Amino acid sequence: MGDRPQRDYGNRTPLEAAYTPHLDRLVKGGWAGLMDPVDPGIPPGSDVAHFSIFGYDPYKYYTGRGGLEAAGVGIKLAPEDVAFRCNFSTTDNNLVVVDRRAGRIRNGTQELAKALTGMQLKTVQDVTVEFVQTIEHRGVLVLRGSGLSRHVSDVDPHQLNVRVLQSKPLDNSSEARRTADAVNEFTSRSNEVLKDHPVNLERIRQGEKPANIILSRGAGTFPQLTPLSTLYGVRTGCIAVVALVRGICKIAGMEVIDVKGATGGLDTDFMAKADAATRALESYDYVLLHVKATDVAGHDGNFEAKQHAIESIDKMIGKLIDAADPSRTYIAVTADHTTAVSVKDHSGDPVPLLIAGPDVIPSEVTKFCEKTVSHGNLGRIRGFNLTPILMNYLGKTSKFGY
Amino acid sequence: MGDRPQRDYGNRTPLEAAYTPHLDRLVKGGWAGLMDPVDPGIPPGSDVAHFSIFGYDPYKYYTGRGGLEAAGVGIKLAPEDVAFRCNFSTTDNNLVVVDRRAGRIRNGTQELAKALTGMQLKTVQDVTVEFVQTIEHRGVLVLRGSGLSRHVSDVDPHQLNVRVLQSKPLDNSSEARRTADAVNEFTSRSNEVLKDHPVNLERIRQGEKPANIILSRGAGTFPQLTPLSTLYGVRTGCIAVVALVRGICKIAGMEVIDVKGATGGLDTDFMAKADAATRALESYDYVLLHVKATDVAGHDGNFEAKQHAIESIDKMIGKLIDAADPSRTYIAVTADHTTAVSVKDHSGDPVPLLIAGPDVIPSEVTKFCEKTVSHGNLGRIRGFNLTPILMNYLGKTSKFGY
Repeated sequence: MGDRPQRDYGNRTPLEAAYTPHLDRLVKGGWAGLMDPVDPGIPPGSDVAHFSIFGYDPYKYYTGRGGLEAAGVGIKLAPEDVAFRCNFSTTDNNLVVVDRRAGRIRNGTQELAKALTGMQLKTVQDVTVEFVQTIEHRGVLVLRGSGLSRHVSDVDPHQLNVRVLQSKPLDNSSEARRTADAVNEFTSRSNEVLKDHPVNLERIRQGEKPANIILSRGAGTFPQLTPLSTLYGVRTGCIAVVALVRGICKIAGMEVIDVKGATGGLDTDFMAKADAATRALESYDYVLLHVKATDVAGHDGNFEAKQHAIESIDKMIGKLIDAADPSRTYIAVTADHTTAVSVKDHSGDPVPLLIAGPDVIPSEVTKFCEKTVSHGNLGRIRGFNLTPILMNYLGKTSKFGY
Repeated sequence: MGDRPQRDYGNRTPLEAAYTPHLDRLVKGGWAGLMDPVDPGIPPGSDVAHFSIFGYDPYKYYTGRGGLEAAGVGIKLAPEDVAFRCNFSTTDNNLVVVDRRAGRIRNGTQELAKALTGMQLKTVQDVTVEFVQTIEHRGVLVLRGSGLSRHVSDVDPHQLNVRVLQSKPLDNSSEARRTADAVNEFTSRSNEVLKDHPVNLERIRQGEKPANIILSRGAGTFPQLTPLSTLYGVRTGCIAVVALVRGICKIAGMEVIDVKGATGGLDTDFMAKADAATRALESYDYVLLHVKATDVAGHDGNFEAKQHAIESIDKMIGKLIDAADPSRTYIAVTADHTTAVSVKDHSGDPVPLLIAGPDVIPSEVTKFCEKTVSHGNLGRIRGFNLTPILMNYLGKTSKFGY
């Protein structure tokens, strides 16, 4: 949601340019301020940012992308198992990357995944290999066994026309060395297994790029979090489409609520999300309503699409407010990071934040945007302060000391 | 630069009283806020404050003054070597301090230093003694060898008419005990070697105070920092005269740029500094321009001199802005600590901060001073947030997470 002033749009941000009567009403009666999702200047990934927003200091609790990816698709990890975010990719005969997404392959990936699972590694003993296809060209590699480590580098070079990388240990432990060896053997063996697989031979016949290698990245273990339900004694639910966000929500102990018409894109059904959140508030104390559309527009560098998504969010929030009991409902509106249209990627700017509800000091700020909230009454907080602040209003925080 | 309101000057601070049209223009279009160089209420030394401003948490990375002093004059330290900031001083026959700066001795100090270097210690084995004269009455003592520690107390009592102190170990380690023994032997032996040295006999004849002892303080090792160039992939330069600041800049990986006419005093050539910074910005991504004059005036308790120095800084910044490309240049203006004219020393007040540049949210604050920025849009950050914030605007910060 947050952004930087754009010269071509009167030095306004998309949030500033957007018509947002409901947000403006909320911010006037609520706390208004800035939030550094992690730390000032540090661009967070969505995973790290959500850890923080749920109250878990990511410097302590974040254990890499792979573990979250696995959790998102329901794979159970033992504490020592290491998981990797993977792509089905296309390389040439010299293992030079031709397409990181194998022509965005959609069909046959389950059969390819089956051919990889259960692979017996030769360089490393007592490690079980599991490969799970997730959505389109994406998958998760799980190495199960003891003596493994998440401190290994990516095989995926993150660019085209260069050779597949060797995974390297990132510390001096034997566990990291052993894991890097396992990953490297898996990578070259994935190429041997996949290159002549019938699914790929058929793709080549059809003039499509073969999914002839697995490129892994983001080694991670399962994060050891005490769920919000235990920490605060609350029932928590989440409305989100993005697998990564759903995964973190599950790890934080939230129940994931599916909403028909929610897509994770610009075409998501905002109103269906509002209805689902309203229903959820009947049985949960805390509901996360996640919208991906603004981030998508930011990555696309599309100011108007971002502005439009914000206006849709405003309507969604209007519907939510109308249905909510104002005497006992708090609403916080913020972003997990800035995806500025000029940057087309996450940046380390602070994000705007409002917190409205019955016991809140009114800011008297009349428009919800980056400029105005920076003069607001909340000051500047860090992401992991947000959940305790909300739990305090719900009367769910425990006293520290006597 | 920062200060406290002075009753005799209409309850204004020097920055508030100063005519600063260029700073005022910058702050209006940029972020305005307060920065605690280290932590609220903690008066930082210039060394600790610069660590923090460069993004290194001083609680983690600061390893004492001596190591920085040594780095500042180009002395290479091995990881276990311990260095001390020293003065040539004058004591009477009972080792009572008569003058901590030996009448601000200027001549003959190199000969005196030569007489101390290579001293064979009797109480401690396998420790090499090196003494380097730096500027005027100042010098650096280096103890080289293994099994040394920086956790020893000062010999310098920091006041007159008291006896020279014994260095004491500050923890229970044998290394600290051994280092304290070495320092104590060096101190008494320095008195034996220096008191009848021809340089001092001549001084006594001339009615000047003899430099008859070395008083050491601020034991330190070389700080282990990853340079900014590695952390962010930037070329960094610094314009500073003060040896300590130059030393920290070098340790942080900056190239030190010499400027003719820059003195580190009230008489420094501000405009020459502006020109040097402008030229430096052609080949560096990040340039530190350090001015000592405001701190000097603060230590002197001289309001007018401080106001005047600030007005000179404003003109310097005006020259800088005129020469800079506004579409790609960011400028941050702040202080490494407050040296209030009423205190005549560093205090733990927050300092004013502005950050201006192309993608920045405008504060609409119309005057740059302590009062106004505290109502600004940046909130209150800590010193070590500043460099990541600037690197974020330069697109040089790495994403944390995915």
